[in-house]
Amino acid sequence: MSTETAKEPVNYPFARRLAGMGVSAIREILKVTEQPEVISFAGGLPAPEVFPVAALARAHAEVFAEEGAEACQYSTTEGFGPLREWVAKRMVKRGIRTAAPERVLVTSGSQQGIDLVAKIFLDPGDAVVVENPCYLAALQVFNGFEAKLIAVGSDDDGMKVDEVEQAIESAAQRPKFIYIVSQFHNPKGTTLSHARRRRLLEVARRFGVPIVEDDPYGELRYRGAPLAPLAALDEDGLVIYLSTFSKTLSPGMRVGWTHSSAEVFGALVRAKQAADLHTNTIQQRAAARLLASFDFDAHVERIKTVYGARRDRMLRALEEYFPPASRWTRPDGGLFLWVELPEATRAEELFERAIRERVAFVPGAPFFAGDVRRNFMRLNFSNSPPERIGEGIKRLGQLLK
Amino acid sequence: MSTETAKEPVNYPFARRLAGMGVSAIREILKVTEQPEVISFAGGLPAPEVFPVAALARAHAEVFAEEGAEACQYSTTEGFGPLREWVAKRMVKRGIRTAAPERVLVTSGSQQGIDLVAKIFLDPGDAVVVENPCYLAALQVFNGFEAKLIAVGSDDDGMKVDEVEQAIESAAQRPKFIYIVSQFHNPKGTTLSHARRRRLLEVARRFGVPIVEDDPYGELRYRGAPLAPLAALDEDGLVIYLSTFSKTLSPGMRVGWTHSSAEVFGALVRAKQAADLHTNTIQQRAAARLLASFDFDAHVERIKTVYGARRDRMLRALEEYFPPASRWTRPDGGLFLWVELPEATRAEELFERAIRERVAFVPGAPFFAGDVRRNFMRLNFSNSPPERIGEGIKRLGQLLK
Repeated sequence: MSTETAKEPVNYPFARRLAGMGVSAIREILKVTEQPEVISFAGGLPAPEVFPVAALARAHAEVFAEEGAEACQYSTTEGFGPLREWVAKRMVKRGIRTAAPERVLVTSGSQQGIDLVAKIFLDPGDAVVVENPCYLAALQVFNGFEAKLIAVGSDDDGMKVDEVEQAIESAAQRPKFIYIVSQFHNPKGTTLSHARRRRLLEVARRFGVPIVEDDPYGELRYRGAPLAPLAALDEDGLVIYLSTFSKTLSPGMRVGWTHSSAEVFGALVRAKQAADLHTNTIQQRAAARLLASFDFDAHVERIKTVYGARRDRMLRALEEYFPPASRWTRPDGGLFLWVELPEATRAEELFERAIRERVAFVPGAPFFAGDVRRNFMRLNFSNSPPERIGEGIKRLGQLLK
Repeated sequence: MSTETAKEPVNYPFARRLAGMGVSAIREILKVTEQPEVISFAGGLPAPEVFPVAALARAHAEVFAEEGAEACQYSTTEGFGPLREWVAKRMVKRGIRTAAPERVLVTSGSQQGIDLVAKIFLDPGDAVVVENPCYLAALQVFNGFEAKLIAVGSDDDGMKVDEVEQAIESAAQRPKFIYIVSQFHNPKGTTLSHARRRRLLEVARRFGVPIVEDDPYGELRYRGAPLAPLAALDEDGLVIYLSTFSKTLSPGMRVGWTHSSAEVFGALVRAKQAADLHTNTIQQRAAARLLASFDFDAHVERIKTVYGARRDRMLRALEEYFPPASRWTRPDGGLFLWVELPEATRAEELFERAIRERVAFVPGAPFFAGDVRRNFMRLNFSNSPPERIGEGIKRLGQLLK
């Protein structure tokens, strides 16, 4: 086969939006950090040891044996009925009393949920309220739809709702929605406090601005009592809820979901139809079979035990090795924590030196929607065994001295 | 679980594009025709009897046994290396000499290929040249990106290239691309002639307009000698080629691909990253394993034998039962043929009567991008056994008398 590249005299007439759609800095960083000898806190990867591989293998075998032809065929855009029912029941269990299978749309990961929500709401120039810092791949989506980002601050209790209110009040146009990772934020690891949940909903209701609640990590709480998701407190159809099996079963499956009011659900179905017709039927059926027979709660408990210990190990190592002038979040769940380094430290420079010491993290800058700050780093604790966490943080601490 | 719907006082601030994104008429029709007693020529479904269920089951079992953790994990946006290599080799075999794995992007079905291409090229108001009639779900995508459609005519040799040339010459703006199903068109079943392929490329080159060649059916030729895809004749990086395993292995897998110049490939990767991070890793690895051990050519031959016989049966039944004032295409491959009914016939009315007789088809109107005509129907022959084809066409013929 020839690998000769075609000549490219064409001046491709790309859309304006392409300028806003950078390649994810993280995905590029991951390519550098893939060598096994690097201790990587860079990715947002679940630990492979907790994937339910045997149970998935069994579920797939059953799907092919008992419903092979249906599983291989085209299917409805909305998703596989029994899976939508399981999801709705699980949401009810998490406090979202009004969750109903007929308003669950199965998506190709929750990333697709973000993309579809952006597609149905955003015209070029529309405003979106985001937390600063914010989940990077959500920023990519919103930039791709040429949104104007209104970045509001956050602290250890999550998004500052007073700033949301001020920002909406003073905005030239009503924002199309507020995007928030309410539980165990990416990159910060923080959780929106109960009082702020109430306040955020009140502000959203007053101004008629929907909230997109992205909740991929909500099941993974290691400390403290669960807080009801924003969707559980919403009585007005304001909250569009997104979640996924990526952090509980497997990200490779690319099975997530949205839950919303019937009107938003209808719009999302239309957008999904054009985007990819429907999500992989084999995986949807395998997930439904697995969940019907499998002790999901026990499985999640096991993940929580593993990740909780890793979180504790990382926090201890930070205390021990990081300079006193740095501070970090102490997440109650999720995969990440967020370190503020001394003001003069440049995380990108540290990254270059760290890679030479075979340890990796993600510099914080690309997570900022506005007011970019250079002295932050995101650390993932789910994907490294405790002994490597200790060693990696020690190496980083030495570099910081 | 409560199925109470949340109140919806919110006046959702939807994007303009939503107005252009109807629910697919076909997918709605399919819901009516799903009852097993209906003889349906409506869907574009492969025959479930030809799905390689046992081979897929084996490939999945091997993936879980030998590479379970990697298969369940996040992966690169570009796709699984061995699958990209297989695809490039297959493309070379189909005459696309310059096909190279590093420019193959694995997509979630070729529908996602259409969506990603639209996303990287189309600003609101941009023009796209399409054939009239045109693949419905491509029209949905282009409308969703608020494109202006320039619809050119077609005959039994496919898209009329003279009309393409005139349309581009007289357009107020350079179209962003030409969209074409070059082999065994949906809905028409027709194939672009070799002479027109040369001419279309020449026109595209002269005006610097890329061609999006959507080729989901190209492997399924039942008669005549294969024609090289447009991508095989392209030396300038003008053709963006889309295809899929949906019609050869299984549509439920949602695994397709794009092949393009390096520059377009890079833009598509950025768009895909934001859309769904990457395509299902388990399916990609299972497909790669299957294809490494499986006689794909023999499998495709088997599909061709089954579908070819169904095509022949449908053509014979049309001769026998349809009124002399109707005419139809005689496709050399693919899944569909296209019937022009007497001028005064309204296909939508016929559909209502046909459903009462338990036979279904898709009225042609929604496939028209402009100049909508009401006396056409699309008939699918791949999804019904020959005896049901004969009976179904007989019932339709009786209704037409």
